[in-house]
Amino acid sequence: MYKLILLRHGESIWEQENRFTGWSDPDLSEKGKEEARHAGDLLKSFHFRFDICYTSYLQRAIKTQYIIAEEMGLLWVPVIKNWRLNERHYGALQGLSKTEITEKYGEEQVMIWRRSYDARPPQISDFDPRFPAHDIRYEGIDASLLSHGESLQDTVNRVLPCWELDVAPVVKQGKTVLIVAHGNSLRALEMHLLQLTPEEIVKVEIPVGKPVIFELDKELKTLKYYFLG
Amino acid sequence: MYKLILLRHGESIWEQENRFTGWSDPDLSEKGKEEARHAGDLLKSFHFRFDICYTSYLQRAIKTQYIIAEEMGLLWVPVIKNWRLNERHYGALQGLSKTEITEKYGEEQVMIWRRSYDARPPQISDFDPRFPAHDIRYEGIDASLLSHGESLQDTVNRVLPCWELDVAPVVKQGKTVLIVAHGNSLRALEMHLLQLTPEEIVKVEIPVGKPVIFELDKELKTLKYYFLG
Repeated sequence: MYKLILLRHGESIWEQENRFTGWSDPDLSEKGKEEARHAGDLLKSFHFRFDICYTSYLQRAIKTQYIIAEEMGLLWVPVIKNWRLNERHYGALQGLSKTEITEKYGEEQVMIWRRSYDARPPQISDFDPRFPAHDIRYEGIDASLLSHGESLQDTVNRVLPCWELDVAPVVKQGKTVLIVAHGNSLRALEMHLLQLTPEEIVKVEIPVGKPVIFELDKELKTLKYYFLG
Repeated sequence: MYKLILLRHGESIWEQENRFTGWSDPDLSEKGKEEARHAGDLLKSFHFRFDICYTSYLQRAIKTQYIIAEEMGLLWVPVIKNWRLNERHYGALQGLSKTEITEKYGEEQVMIWRRSYDARPPQISDFDPRFPAHDIRYEGIDASLLSHGESLQDTVNRVLPCWELDVAPVVKQGKTVLIVAHGNSLRALEMHLLQLTPEEIVKVEIPVGKPVIFELDKELKTLKYYFLG
């Protein structure tokens, strides 16, 4: 039986300000750091360990992972950062507050963007500074893979190759993997691990700072999953 | 022309207490954290960047690297941890204060251990908790490679495969590498990069928190090196 731990990063400064974040890279808030410490304490108190970690290219996830490893005395464990674990790219909504977006597009449209599986947000152009190709950290990545604004479906399609090619083979080696990522990249993983339909996954809310433990069989089918704490 | 940045970690709590540290794993002191931040600021102000980092399995080096990356906005850069970059293993001296050691072994003997190239410290047994095989982080490593107490020569022999097999090929790809390590593992690298003799290397003191920049030619011969700040 294999073990996998998923965790959503702690609160960021923008979440505190109620702004759409996506691939923008704000720091953790003080509350977010506290949530990360709490998650590390929880894992430690239940005698969990991990052999390797995966996280995104965004500092709110990287810092959450670091704080957990520090709390658990596991800073020496390998950490792999993968852009495919980034949050959903929110296109032209990134950086705007929920109030601004509701005023501009109306409440109904906002609900469609947030609750539907395949609706994309307003797209940004290649010249928009929010297009990832302008950010040095994505410069090695084929620009055709980078998004102008993703639906949840787009996020799922972008995240799953990281699972299939990078994480799953390591889990099959018997290593306990910790993935620290984002609301929607974790939805993508849970959709796959729990074999959920689009209708089901849009209703799933991933709580912040609460580790989810998956127990998987030899074919990486989910036998059991539960929240810690 | 290739670029390489070497940095010794900031002060640890044990250094503050004047204790032999080696492979023991104390945290950075507040002064050590400040030294790390200062090194990050220096690199940033001189417009340095790095594409990949190497560090040891010891938290004083890992944390120094993290603080630098945070200061420079480069937390997303890959970090490889390698036990071969650990500090010299000080055998039975680890954990003792310099006063205790001088009282026990005499000033002259202490100078021999600290200043000679091939003198080993008093060895620990396989059953000593300081023998690395008892530490979960080294469990994947062939125990015959783990030390009971190293001379500087032993450290050099242990560090160089990491350079040859891991770091050098990456430097040759044109990547700027940052190595955050320890007084003696950095001595090993400098001995190799500057083609120093045993008599020369024992006199080299690597300052804390001051980045050393190496400019290397195509065969990774040193063209120039200098301290920043």
